[in-house]
Amino acid sequence: MAEIVAIKRVADTPLRVEADGPLLRVILASPPANALSREMLKRLHEAIDRASTDGAVRVVVIGAEGKVFSAGHDLKEMNGRRGDADRGRAFFEETMLACASLMQAIVRCPKPVIAAVDGLATAAGLQLFASCDLAVATDTATFCTPGVNIGLFCSTPMVALSRNVGRKQAMEMLLTGETIDAATAREWGLINRVVPREYLNPVVTKYAQTIASKPASTLRIGKEAFYRQAEMPLAEAYDHSVRVMVENMLARDAEEGIGAFLEKREARWED
Amino acid sequence: MAEIVAIKRVADTPLRVEADGPLLRVILASPPANALSREMLKRLHEAIDRASTDGAVRVVVIGAEGKVFSAGHDLKEMNGRRGDADRGRAFFEETMLACASLMQAIVRCPKPVIAAVDGLATAAGLQLFASCDLAVATDTATFCTPGVNIGLFCSTPMVALSRNVGRKQAMEMLLTGETIDAATAREWGLINRVVPREYLNPVVTKYAQTIASKPASTLRIGKEAFYRQAEMPLAEAYDHSVRVMVENMLARDAEEGIGAFLEKREARWED
Amino acid sequence: MAEIVAIKRVADTPLRVEADGPLLRVILASPPANALSREMLKRLHEAIDRASTDGAVRVVVIGAEGKVFSAGHDLKEMNGRRGDADRGRAFFEETMLACASLMQAIVRCPKPVIAAVDGLATAAGLQLFASCDLAVATDTATFCTPGVNIGLFCSTPMVALSRNVGRKQAMEMLLTGETIDAATAREWGLINRVVPREYLNPVVTKYAQTIASKPASTLRIGKEAFYRQAEMPLAEAYDHSVRVMVENMLARDAEEGIGAFLEKREARWED
Repeated sequence: MAEIVAIKRVADTPLRVEADGPLLRVILASPPANALSREMLKRLHEAIDRASTDGAVRVVVIGAEGKVFSAGHDLKEMNGRRGDADRGRAFFEETMLACASLMQAIVRCPKPVIAAVDGLATAAGLQLFASCDLAVATDTATFCTPGVNIGLFCSTPMVALSRNVGRKQAMEMLLTGETIDAATAREWGLINRVVPREYLNPVVTKYAQTIASKPASTLRIGKEAFYRQAEMPLAEAYDHSVRVMVENMLARDAEEGIGAFLEKREARWED
Repeated sequence: MAEIVAIKRVADTPLRVEADGPLLRVILASPPANALSREMLKRLHEAIDRASTDGAVRVVVIGAEGKVFSAGHDLKEMNGRRGDADRGRAFFEETMLACASLMQAIVRCPKPVIAAVDGLATAAGLQLFASCDLAVATDTATFCTPGVNIGLFCSTPMVALSRNVGRKQAMEMLLTGETIDAATAREWGLINRVVPREYLNPVVTKYAQTIASKPASTLRIGKEAFYRQAEMPLAEAYDHSVRVMVENMLARDAEEGIGAFLEKREARWED
Repeated sequence: MAEIVAIKRVADTPLRVEADGPLLRVILASPPANALSREMLKRLHEAIDRASTDGAVRVVVIGAEGKVFSAGHDLKEMNGRRGDADRGRAFFEETMLACASLMQAIVRCPKPVIAAVDGLATAAGLQLFASCDLAVATDTATFCTPGVNIGLFCSTPMVALSRNVGRKQAMEMLLTGETIDAATAREWGLINRVVPREYLNPVVTKYAQTIASKPASTLRIGKEAFYRQAEMPLAEAYDHSVRVMVENMLARDAEEGIGAFLEKREARWED
C-alpha cells in the first residue's frame, strides 16, 4: 500500500527528491523535455530550500531522467496564457521571477550544488546547471541557447552563461543559437568534467562525497564569500574576505581542523 | 565613366562600405597598414551609425584588404601634431575619444558585428575586432599590443582585450608587446574560430547569414541586454534580464516564433 | 669573514632579496614550507616597497628555494596564539591584513612582478603568485587551495584565484581542496607558461629582461591603468583609459619612442 502511494507521488510530481546519506539528489523526472514548468520551478525551489535548512544535507546533486537534461521553460504553458486579459504579462512575469529566484537560490544555498548533465541542456535548462557550483557532463551531452530562433532571446540564461564563459563564446551561442558539444563546453569553462555516460553517476557521487566530507560550516562560509567577493573591486574583496577569514579562524571547525592537521590526527567536525 | 567615378571613390576614402543583402560589409581599404587615421575612424563610425539605423542591414561584417588587418592608430598623423601650440594635446584627445567612441558604438550597435581578421592586428587594430560581437581569423593572422615598445602603452586597446581574455594572458601581451598566433588567440577566447585563408569569407558569411535569418528585434533586445547585464552584480543582472524577457515575450516576434515552434511551422518575422 | 656574515644573514631572514641588474630577485628562503609567517609577509612587503621606489629596479621576480614554492600561512604560528586573551583574534586579523596588504602591494607596484613557481603552491602561497602580473611554472609544479580540508576556507586566496580562472574551475579547487597540475593551471589561465625545471630561471629571466628593456614610465602607466579599468564598466573604463593615453602621448618616452619608430632608429628611454 505504501509502495503504491510512493509510485503515485512520483507520477504526481515532475521532480524526485531523494536523500542519499549526506547528499540530496534532486532529479528532474518529467521526460522527454524536463521542461521548467511553473510546477517544476516551484518543486526545484522547495528542494533547494530544504537542502539549505536541513542539517542532514551536506551537498545537493541535480540530475535528470531521460535524453534531455532540460529544454528550459515550458513554452506551451506560457503560450497558453496569451489569451489572458493582460496578454499573459502577469504570468510571464511570475514565471521569469520564479526562474531567476530559483537560480539565485542555488547560488545562495549554503550547501554546494553539483549538476550531473546528460543529453541536451537548452536555454533555462542550461541556466539551471550553469548556476550550480560544479557541473559534470557526459561526453554526449549538448548545450545551446536557442531562444533567438523563436524570437525570445535567452536573456536570463545568459546571466549564468556569461558568468562562466568568455564574451565571444557566449555571444556565439546566443546569436547563432547553435549547439556545442561537451568537449567545447569544458574548454570554454562551462563545465568541470566530461565523462562517459556510465561514469556520470559514479564521478558526480565521488565529487559530492569528497565535498560532503568537509566541515559544513566551512563550506557555507566559503561558498557565500566566493560569490560575494566575485562582484567586488579588489580592495573591497580583500576587506570582505579578511573579515571572513578572521571569523572562520575563530570558529570551532577551524580550531579543530588546524589542530588535527598540526597534530597529524583525523579531525572531528562539529557539523 | 561611372566606373571611373567608382574607382576615384575607392581612392578617396580609406573605407569601403558595401551592402550585400542583409549584410553590411565594412572593409578597411587603406593598405598596407589600414591605420585608424582620423578619417578612417570617422568613416568607420559613420558605417556603424548607418548599420544601426538602416532597417535593411541585419548584420555588419568588418574586414580589411591586404596583409595587415589594421596596425592601429596613425602614428605619423599623430606625431605630426606635436608642433601644435598645445604640443598636440587637443588632437590626441580628439583622436582617442573618436576611437573610444567608435568601439563603444560597435558594442551598442543593435545589429551583431562580426570581424573577419586576416594578417596582423595590432594595438587599436586589435581593439577594433575585439570590440565586435564575434571574430573569425585566418590561421596566419597574428595579434599584438606593442605600444609598450614605443613608449605608448596600449591602454585603450586593453579595455577590449581584457574583456575577452584572462588577466595573466592580457598582461603577457601588454607587458612584452610580443605577438601571438591565431591558435593561441582562440585558446585564450579572443576569437571564435580559426580557418584557412580561403575559408575566411565563406565562414564569416555563413555566420552572418545564419544570424541575419533571426528576427532583428530579438537580436537587438538580446545584444543590448548582454552587455548591460555583464556589468551588473548577479541580483541586478537578473532583475534587468527578467524585465527584458517579459517585454520580449510580449513582442510580436516572440509570439510568432513560439507559435510557429509549437505548431511546427516556419516563422514569419516582422522585421 | 664576509662570507660568514652573508651566511648568517641567510639564516636570519626567511627571504633573500638580490639585485640583478634591472631585476630584483625576491626568493623565499625558508624551506621546506616557505610559509608566509608574519616575518615572511613583512620582508616580502618591504621588498615590494623597495622595488616600487628604487629607480634601479625595473622588474621584480618572485621565486622560492626548495620543493615547495609556498605552503601559505604559518598555521603553527597562528594556532600558537589561540591562548591569547582574545583567543588570537587580534593576531589573526593583523596576519590576514598583512597578507591582503602584501598582495595588493604587488598589484599596485609600478614595476611588473613575475612569479617563478616550482613545486607545490598552496593557499596563500597560490595567492602570492596569482597576485603577480605574470607567472611561469615548472612542469612538476602543483597547485591547490586546501583550506576546506582543515576547516579554514581559502577565502582570501580565492580573491586572487577567481580573478584569474573561471568560476567553475575556481570552485572545483576551493570545494574539493584537490591538487591540479601545471598543464591544467595553464589551461585555466592561472599561469602563463609551463617549462621543464632546468628552464624555469632562463625563461623567467628572459621574460623579465624583455620587459625591463621597455621604458619604466610606460610600464608604470600601463600596469596601473590595467588593474583600474578592469574594475570599471565599459564607458568608465574608456573614459579613464583615454585620459591615460593622452597623458602618455605627451610624456617624453612616447615622444621619443614614436619618433624613433617613425625614423626607424633605436629609442633612448629616459628611465
